[in-house]
Amino acid sequence: MDLELLKSLATPAKTKVLLCVVDGLGGLPDSETLRTELEAADIPNLDRLASESTTGLSLPVAFGVTPGSGPGHLALFGYDPLKYEVGRGVLEALGIDFDLHEVDVAARGNVCTLDADGKIIDRRAGRIASEETARICEKLREIKIPGVEILIEPVEGYRWLFVLRGEGLDDRLTQTDPEREGVAPKPVEALAPEAQTTADIVNKFVALALEKIKDEPKGNGILLRGFAKHPTFPPLPEVTGMRAGAFAVYPMYRGLAKLVGMTVAPGGGTPMSQLEAMKAAWDNFDFFFYHFKKADSAGEDGNFRAKVAALEEFDALVPHLRALNPDVMMVAGDHSTPSQLAAHSWHPVPFLIWSKLGARDGVDAFSETSCRAGALSVFPAKEVLSLAMAHSMRLLKFGA
Amino acid sequence: MDLELLKSLATPAKTKVLLCVVDGLGGLPDSETLRTELEAADIPNLDRLASESTTGLSLPVAFGVTPGSGPGHLALFGYDPLKYEVGRGVLEALGIDFDLHEVDVAARGNVCTLDADGKIIDRRAGRIASEETARICEKLREIKIPGVEILIEPVEGYRWLFVLRGEGLDDRLTQTDPEREGVAPKPVEALAPEAQTTADIVNKFVALALEKIKDEPKGNGILLRGFAKHPTFPPLPEVTGMRAGAFAVYPMYRGLAKLVGMTVAPGGGTPMSQLEAMKAAWDNFDFFFYHFKKADSAGEDGNFRAKVAALEEFDALVPHLRALNPDVMMVAGDHSTPSQLAAHSWHPVPFLIWSKLGARDGVDAFSETSCRAGALSVFPAKEVLSLAMAHSMRLLKFGA
Repeated sequence: MDLELLKSLATPAKTKVLLCVVDGLGGLPDSETLRTELEAADIPNLDRLASESTTGLSLPVAFGVTPGSGPGHLALFGYDPLKYEVGRGVLEALGIDFDLHEVDVAARGNVCTLDADGKIIDRRAGRIASEETARICEKLREIKIPGVEILIEPVEGYRWLFVLRGEGLDDRLTQTDPEREGVAPKPVEALAPEAQTTADIVNKFVALALEKIKDEPKGNGILLRGFAKHPTFPPLPEVTGMRAGAFAVYPMYRGLAKLVGMTVAPGGGTPMSQLEAMKAAWDNFDFFFYHFKKADSAGEDGNFRAKVAALEEFDALVPHLRALNPDVMMVAGDHSTPSQLAAHSWHPVPFLIWSKLGARDGVDAFSETSCRAGALSVFPAKEVLSLAMAHSMRLLKFGA
Repeated sequence: MDLELLKSLATPAKTKVLLCVVDGLGGLPDSETLRTELEAADIPNLDRLASESTTGLSLPVAFGVTPGSGPGHLALFGYDPLKYEVGRGVLEALGIDFDLHEVDVAARGNVCTLDADGKIIDRRAGRIASEETARICEKLREIKIPGVEILIEPVEGYRWLFVLRGEGLDDRLTQTDPEREGVAPKPVEALAPEAQTTADIVNKFVALALEKIKDEPKGNGILLRGFAKHPTFPPLPEVTGMRAGAFAVYPMYRGLAKLVGMTVAPGGGTPMSQLEAMKAAWDNFDFFFYHFKKADSAGEDGNFRAKVAALEEFDALVPHLRALNPDVMMVAGDHSTPSQLAAHSWHPVPFLIWSKLGARDGVDAFSETSCRAGALSVFPAKEVLSLAMAHSMRLLKFGA
């Protein structure tokens, strides 16, 4: 249901809801064994949990749509990603606690490697170290363009944040990142006449940046994408009446949680240390967002075995998560990241919801194949919040 | 996803997509054997293809809606049939390459048989021959009404095209065809005050026509339906970036393809000759629409055995279709035509999508019952294009 209806039906309860997001959870069958990563993994705790839960496959955005992390998470938080749009730049800014102003236009930056012809050899500069990126960012900070303030922040690994600050800036811009290698970065184009000045500034910045870093061995190029201003969404605590806390190692996911008004715990550490932090804060919140990243990273690297291992690592956390004794516990993915594709994909994602009121649906394993037969069938991910509130007795009856 | 979003995500690729539409594909179980036409048919090639594919049941328009050929096909082409409406008259015109002007109002005509009381004995005049209909059309062409040009074209069998040409014509008209026998054709009524003049002209034409053909042994009546002006839809090649070619024996389906901007190969011939034409044009297109009619015709005739035979005939074409080596191959139906109903129906239609990135879903037969358990579950037919583009790697990621 949409957030307005949800808000009108929300009623207080003492129940606690735990949403575990296994990033890039879904996969595809290996061409030889015909088993997906989840099916190849030894995940007895997830399988047992599935057998005690209601299951299904969540459709993150729409049929055939491959979601980025933003839309994938917003949907799981209950926000229709086709309605609540947010650019990557804003997410990067939020994730590092950058103080984004209303006038700002932010973009996600990559440090990349270019060949002598200016074509991209590696979109992530060989996954260059954070310290190297920080050093390159120092060089980029020397660039000045009259009439606008340029703010540069290293984020993590090859990633950095680009912010233009000034009056009259417009975020309707195309990205420079062609999202493939072997071609040159693209110039920024204005998608509306009002954005032409901003486009010109960005293109000027890129030209000056290439001059500044041309002698870098790995990081001699930059890519920009997700130009965006800060959006305003209805806060999840106001909509649902639940105090919401977010526990995530990586900045992006803390940024997403903050965007919908969650209280965000400090980042870093390990999945286990975030779990401990959540345990310590158990009395402070009603809704808990717990993020587990490694499945996506392994999938993006095209490493089937590593993804299997990541899923097994998450499985080992499940008993600790259950020991928190939530009234509702969900395991979801923001999207699929099949290691065969080495990228996010459009495939629906395994999902389970366990609750003290739970309807078991006869599914006894947690996988793409088994959850398809679950009681939820293929369902829109944006309904996850509605389901969570229903199962936690936090929704009034609709109609008399 | 809607066409705007699809267009914004479309990205070029070298992949080829083949959409095979088996007209009237879906059926209902025989009351004795409890097997549908697909389940009674010997279709080893379709079954094998299903076992290597992702399957589901496509819902052409909405729950409970029985689609005509227009909505059924538009949905499979990605056009929401509730948003992109097109009248039967326009389709008939397009299908015979009739040069429809912007001011024209077109309608689909049937030659029918009336009894002495003017009640319909046979809505298709005993499936009267094309030559007979052409001769009757010559008589109808003699009718003149001041202030408007009347254009009459035989189409095929009992079918013909009626076009009014003139300024100020309006297509908001009811049909004269009651879609059943034993009652008289209905007068045309205006659905808006602005359409009253057009309604009067049509009713005058019908009265004059009955006078002209009253002595015909079979074709002594006419039925008109689907009054429509030519709509303007976003062309599929522009939306998707795919060069699209249509291969269909019958004019209606070529007309539908033309409406969404496909390049339409010459009609006529046989399913195999259309397949050969498609093979010869394989380098010229990225998206191929291949239409197979006979399953619908047999279903409409209420002939279970003939429908089984038609499905087996299509099955024999499958190896030839696969030999074209498409990157994505889909088998779909525009709607169900259960032979028990001898008509189109609202039942969801078996669907499969095979691709080199394919997720097999454990379904090993192509039927109403088996596809229901497929990974797509029951899904809107208008998502078929999105799925095709996703599986052919022609869509960018949505959001960061």
